[in-house]
Amino acid sequence: MAKEFMGRDFLLGNEPAVRMFEAAEKMPIFDWHCHLSPKEIYENKEPSDIAELWLAGDHYKWRAMRSCGVEEKYITGDAPGYEKFKAFAACMPSLIGNPMYHWCHLELRRYFGINDILSADTADKIWNSANAAIKAGGFTPRELIAKSNVTHLCTTDDPADSLEYHQLLAKENLPFKVFPAFRPDKALGIDAPAFLPWLSDMKKRAGTEIDSYKKLCEVLKSRIDFFVSLGCCATDHAFSYVPYEEATDEELERIFADAVFGREICTEDADKYKTALLRFLAKEYVARNMVMELHIGPMRNNNTKIFSSVGPDAGCDSIDDRLIAGKLSRFLDSLDRENSLPKTILFTLNPRENYVIGSMLGNFQNSDAESKIQFGSAWWFNDNIDGMREQMKALGNLGALGKFVGMVTDSRSFLSYPRHEYFRRIMCNLLGEFVENGQYPDDEKALRKLAEDISYNNGFKYFGLK
Amino acid sequence: MAKEFMGRDFLLGNEPAVRMFEAAEKMPIFDWHCHLSPKEIYENKEPSDIAELWLAGDHYKWRAMRSCGVEEKYITGDAPGYEKFKAFAACMPSLIGNPMYHWCHLELRRYFGINDILSADTADKIWNSANAAIKAGGFTPRELIAKSNVTHLCTTDDPADSLEYHQLLAKENLPFKVFPAFRPDKALGIDAPAFLPWLSDMKKRAGTEIDSYKKLCEVLKSRIDFFVSLGCCATDHAFSYVPYEEATDEELERIFADAVFGREICTEDADKYKTALLRFLAKEYVARNMVMELHIGPMRNNNTKIFSSVGPDAGCDSIDDRLIAGKLSRFLDSLDRENSLPKTILFTLNPRENYVIGSMLGNFQNSDAESKIQFGSAWWFNDNIDGMREQMKALGNLGALGKFVGMVTDSRSFLSYPRHEYFRRIMCNLLGEFVENGQYPDDEKALRKLAEDISYNNGFKYFGLK
Amino acid sequence: MAKEFMGRDFLLGNEPAVRMFEAAEKMPIFDWHCHLSPKEIYENKEPSDIAELWLAGDHYKWRAMRSCGVEEKYITGDAPGYEKFKAFAACMPSLIGNPMYHWCHLELRRYFGINDILSADTADKIWNSANAAIKAGGFTPRELIAKSNVTHLCTTDDPADSLEYHQLLAKENLPFKVFPAFRPDKALGIDAPAFLPWLSDMKKRAGTEIDSYKKLCEVLKSRIDFFVSLGCCATDHAFSYVPYEEATDEELERIFADAVFGREICTEDADKYKTALLRFLAKEYVARNMVMELHIGPMRNNNTKIFSSVGPDAGCDSIDDRLIAGKLSRFLDSLDRENSLPKTILFTLNPRENYVIGSMLGNFQNSDAESKIQFGSAWWFNDNIDGMREQMKALGNLGALGKFVGMVTDSRSFLSYPRHEYFRRIMCNLLGEFVENGQYPDDEKALRKLAEDISYNNGFKYFGLK
Repeated sequence: MAKEFMGRDFLLGNEPAVRMFEAAEKMPIFDWHCHLSPKEIYENKEPSDIAELWLAGDHYKWRAMRSCGVEEKYITGDAPGYEKFKAFAACMPSLIGNPMYHWCHLELRRYFGINDILSADTADKIWNSANAAIKAGGFTPRELIAKSNVTHLCTTDDPADSLEYHQLLAKENLPFKVFPAFRPDKALGIDAPAFLPWLSDMKKRAGTEIDSYKKLCEVLKSRIDFFVSLGCCATDHAFSYVPYEEATDEELERIFADAVFGREICTEDADKYKTALLRFLAKEYVARNMVMELHIGPMRNNNTKIFSSVGPDAGCDSIDDRLIAGKLSRFLDSLDRENSLPKTILFTLNPRENYVIGSMLGNFQNSDAESKIQFGSAWWFNDNIDGMREQMKALGNLGALGKFVGMVTDSRSFLSYPRHEYFRRIMCNLLGEFVENGQYPDDEKALRKLAEDISYNNGFKYFGLK
Repeated sequence: MAKEFMGRDFLLGNEPAVRMFEAAEKMPIFDWHCHLSPKEIYENKEPSDIAELWLAGDHYKWRAMRSCGVEEKYITGDAPGYEKFKAFAACMPSLIGNPMYHWCHLELRRYFGINDILSADTADKIWNSANAAIKAGGFTPRELIAKSNVTHLCTTDDPADSLEYHQLLAKENLPFKVFPAFRPDKALGIDAPAFLPWLSDMKKRAGTEIDSYKKLCEVLKSRIDFFVSLGCCATDHAFSYVPYEEATDEELERIFADAVFGREICTEDADKYKTALLRFLAKEYVARNMVMELHIGPMRNNNTKIFSSVGPDAGCDSIDDRLIAGKLSRFLDSLDRENSLPKTILFTLNPRENYVIGSMLGNFQNSDAESKIQFGSAWWFNDNIDGMREQMKALGNLGALGKFVGMVTDSRSFLSYPRHEYFRRIMCNLLGEFVENGQYPDDEKALRKLAEDISYNNGFKYFGLK
Repeated sequence: MAKEFMGRDFLLGNEPAVRMFEAAEKMPIFDWHCHLSPKEIYENKEPSDIAELWLAGDHYKWRAMRSCGVEEKYITGDAPGYEKFKAFAACMPSLIGNPMYHWCHLELRRYFGINDILSADTADKIWNSANAAIKAGGFTPRELIAKSNVTHLCTTDDPADSLEYHQLLAKENLPFKVFPAFRPDKALGIDAPAFLPWLSDMKKRAGTEIDSYKKLCEVLKSRIDFFVSLGCCATDHAFSYVPYEEATDEELERIFADAVFGREICTEDADKYKTALLRFLAKEYVARNMVMELHIGPMRNNNTKIFSSVGPDAGCDSIDDRLIAGKLSRFLDSLDRENSLPKTILFTLNPRENYVIGSMLGNFQNSDAESKIQFGSAWWFNDNIDGMREQMKALGNLGALGKFVGMVTDSRSFLSYPRHEYFRRIMCNLLGEFVENGQYPDDEKALRKLAEDISYNNGFKYFGLK
C-alpha cells in the first residue's frame, strides 16, 4: 500500500532509519552557510503574505514557473501577489519528482500547520489559511529561525561590508548566534565588471588607498580580523572552474595595475591573480582556524534578456562542465606544501564530478581535523533526494561518511530550514539501508551517534564552535 | 517469488504504477522523430521472413552479435537469413540486462503472438512460427504502424529530398499521418566529404544556382516552406559537440566559397558557418512554430574497416565526451536575444551530461510554450531502463516532469513501437514509486493526467498538432 | 527486519541471487591482474601479526585513517603495530558505506574465523585473537592463496625484471600457477624521471646497448618472448589520459635521442612516442594471443609532502577527468586497421566514463574472441557495491554482460581474495534482480551458467588458459 503523502515516516524506508531519525530530528541546526540577510534578521519585520515569503526572491520557484510556461509578469513582473501565488500553485502538480514539491509542502506543514496539497484547486484555500497564519504571528525572521531550532548561522558577506547588523545583532539577546562569513569573490574577480566598483567601496570601508596588490592583501587581512572579531569561522568562494596559475610578485602587481587602469584582463592573468590571492587568503584562514569553502561549477547569468531586466540570481544559472581534477589537485597541493591548506569544504555543482571530488579529499587529509577536507553536501541543483544520496554514497565509498559535516542550507529564505529535516530523513534512510541490508551492524549506540554527528555535532566541532 | 518474465505487470513494481499504466497504455503514439522510410510505407511490401525484419538493417543487433564473437558473415555478410537468425538467437542468453533482450521478446509477443524465450535451443521453433505469422499477413509497414496505434509520425528528411512519398502518402486514406521532418545536417556539414555532392543535389532539386551563402539560406528557407506545406512541424540536427563561433557575413561568404572551391575547411571556420546557418534556420523555425531538435554527442564511424566495407550506421558509433555547457549556453542565448529561439529539444547521448542539460533548460524557459526547452528522452545508448529512469529523474529534479514530451522512437524498424510501451511502463513505474513512497499524493486524477500527458498529450500540444 | 550483519545471504537481496551465488561461490579464482610479490610467494614467510598483514602496505587503509584525522605516526610512521591497529580500529565505525568496512570483516571471518565487529571497543580482543590465529599457522602467502581457491594468478612485472621468482616458482609443486604479466609503463614513460634509470636497468638485463628507438623495440620484443615462456598471457598499461599522436620513424628516433640526452620531452613528443611504442607492442601481443589491459584515469602522487616522505602508492592518488573518447577511438582504430588490435580490456577509474567506455567496446568487437574488447571491472575507487553495479549495468545495457571476464583483484595483499566473494555476491544480486523483476527468465541452467562464466570460465577462456 502506498505510504501516506509526506507522513510521519516520509523518506524513511526502513526500520533502522526510523530509529536514527528519532535521534536526528532532536538535534538543533548549525547553518554554517546561508544567504540570509543580517539586516532583515535585525529589522525583524512581519511578512505581508505568503506571496512575499515564497515568491519575492526565490529563483528556484521562478525557474519552476517558467518551466511550466507561466508569463514573466506573474514571476518577476508586477502582477499582484495573489495572482503570482495562483500561477505558482497551478504549476505544482507538474513538479512531480522536484524537491520544490516537497519543500513547499514541508513549509506549509511545519510553519503554517497546513496539510492540504497545493494546486490550482486549493490555491485560494491555502492562500487564505496561510495568510491567516501569518497574521496570527510567528513569522518574523527571528521567530522563524528560533522555531527552526537554529543555534548558529553564518551569513555570507563581502569584505567591504560594514557588518553593522552583525554588530547590532551581537548586542541582542537572541536564542541563536549570527556570524558573518567571509566571501571575497569580488576581490578575486579581477576580470569582472564589478571589480573596480568593489575596489572603490573597499577603499572607503578601509579608509585607505589600495594602490597595489600588496596593499590589497593587507587590507583584506585586516578585514578578516574584523570578521573574526564578530565570530566568523567560515569563508566562501565560488568558481565556475578551478583557476590555477603560478605567478611572480611582479606579475601580480602588473596585473593589479592593469585592472586599476581599466585594461582588459586576459584569462591567464586573471587566473594568476586569483590563484595568488586565494593562496594568500588561505594562509590567513589557517592562522585563524577558519574553514575554506569552495563552490565549484556554477555557470551564471546565461540568459542575457533576463539578466538585463531582472539582474543576477534570477533563476538563469546552470551547471558548468569544465575539467577540474588537475588544477584543483595542484592548487590544494601548493597550499599543503606551504602548510597553508585550511580546513576545506569542496562543493561540486556538477554531480558527475562526485568521484573526482570524493577521491580528491583523500589526497590531503591529515590530523589537523577529522576529515579536514570535506566533500560538501549536494547543493543547489543537487539539493534533492538523488543528489544527496549520490553525494553521500560517493563519500561513503571513498572517505569517512561518519565524519561528514552534513547539510548546507545555502538559502535566501527564512522558511528553508525544513530542508535540514529533508536532508536528515534522506541521510537516515541511506544509513538505515546499510543496516537493513546487513552491510552495517545494528548497533543502536553507533547509529545514534552517526545520526547526531552528521546532523549537528560534526559541523560544530569542525568549525571550532564552543 | 520472482515475477513472471515480461508478464502483465512487466516493469511495474508498485500499485500506483499499475493504475497509471492502465491509462498510459490506452494512449495512441505520436512518433515525432523516427528514421522510417516514407518510400517503404508507401510501397507497403510484405517482408519475406523475420531475418529481414530483424537483421537486415538493425545495427543494434549487429553490435550485440559482434559482442558475442559472431563472424561478420552472419551479421552484415552473405550468410542466409536463417543462419543469421540462428546466430543471433544463440547470443540472446548473454544479453542479460540489455534492452535488446526486452525489445525482441516484446516484438515476438506483441506482433507475432510468440511467448517463447529466444535462444539457440528455441531458434528453429521461433523461426518457423514467426515466419508462419508473417505469411499469415499483417506485417506490411502500414499494418504494423496502424496496429501500433500510431496517429502521426515524422520521418527524417534532407532539404534536398523530393518528399515525393510524403506527397503520395498524403493522398492515401491512412489511419495515421506521415509528416516529413527537416534535417539539414548535410547543409550544416560544410567540412564533411558529403557537402559538395549534397550541394549539387540541392541545386538540382531547387532548380537554381547556389553560388553564395546567402543564396543557400534562401533556398533552404523555401525548402522549409515546402516541408511545412506537407505538415512538417519538427526538425533535427546532430552534433558530436556544440559548435559556437561568431562570424561576419563576409566571413561566411568566404568560408562558403572555400568549400565550393574544394579548399579544406578548418574547424573554426566550420564552426562559424554551422553557428550562423543554424541561427538562420532557427529564426525560420520560430516563424513557423517548428520544433528544433538537437541531438548532441554521437561519435560516428569509429571503425574504419567496417565503414569501408559496410558503410555508416553499421553499429560502430559511440559516445563523445567533449565539453558542451559553455557553448550550448551561448548559442541558445544568442538566439534568445534575437527572439529567434524556437521550441527546442536537447538530447544528450552522454548520460553524464544529464544534469548539465537538465539545468540548461531552465535558463531559457518562457511562456512561448509549456517547457519550451525540453530535455529529450534517453536515446540510443541510453534507451534502456537505467537511461530512461536517470533522464526522467534528472528532469524531475531540475524541471517540470509533468510537461515532458516523452518517448522518442528514433528507429529504422517498423517493429519498434513496443519501445513506447517499454518507456511508458518505466515512466509509470518511476512516477508510481514517488506515490508509493509518499513523495507525491495518491490523486487518481492527477496521476492519470500525468501518465496520459507524458505518453501522448504533451507532445501533441508541444508540436502544435491539431 | 534488518538482515544479520554480513550473514549467509550478505548482499543477496533476492531468491534467484541466492541460487546463483551457490553456483558462483564454488568456482575457483583466476586472478589475472594483481600486484602480489612473486618474491614473497616464493619466500613464503609467516607474518608476525595482523598489523603487518593489514597496515604495512595497504594505502586504502592509510587513506581511511587520514580521513578520520589519525596522525601520520600511526599510519606510515614509527608507532608500534599494536598502536596502529588500535588507531585503525577506532576509525571503523565512521567508515559506514565504505567497502573497507566489508573487506576487513570478510577477512576476519574467512581467514581468522573472527565474527566480532571491529571498533575501538573490540580492538584489543581482535588483536589478540587474530594474532593467535596467525601464530596457529596457515597465514603464509602460499597457504592464503591456496585456501582462497586460486588456480592461476598473474603478477605485474616490468620488462627489466629478471622474473627469477617466477622461474623458481615454476619448479615448485604448487596447487596454483604464478604467471608474470608484462607492464611496460616505464618503457612508455619517456617523459618521466624514471625513464633513464629504467633504460639503464633494461640494458643490463638485456645485456645489450639500447641506442635507438628501433633497438628498444627489439629488446622489448625479446622480453615479451621471455615473459611468454613463463606463462605470461596478460599485459598492463596505465594512463592518466589517452595519448594519441601519429609520428614518423624519424621523429621517434629523434624523441628517443632527446630523452637519452636528457632533454626535456614535451607532451606532444611524449604522446607520439607512447602511441608508437604501444602500437608496436600491441602488434606483438596479437601475435602471441596476449591480452592488452589499459587502465585509464589515475592521477598519481597528488600530495608532494607525502610523496617526499613516504613515496608513491601512499594513498595520495585520485581520479583524473581528462577527455578520452576521441583519442581512444582513434588509437583503437589505428590498431584495428593494421590487424594489430589485441584482445583488450578497457578500465576507467572515472565512473562518469562508464557509458563512453561501454559504448566504445562495440566499435571494435569481432569474432577474434567473445567480447574481444572487454569493459574492465569497477576498480580501485570504484571497487565497491555502487561501482560494481554501475559498471555491470552499463555493460549490460551496452554489450554482452554474459561474456564479461569479471572481477579484477588489483591487490597488493594476500588477504584480498574475499573481494572476489564480494564481487560475486554483487554480480549474482544484480542478475538475480533482473530475474526477480521479470526482466530475465528464471531458467536455472542459464542462470547457473552466467554465474559460473562471469566468476571464472569467461576469464579462463578469454586469456587462453588451458
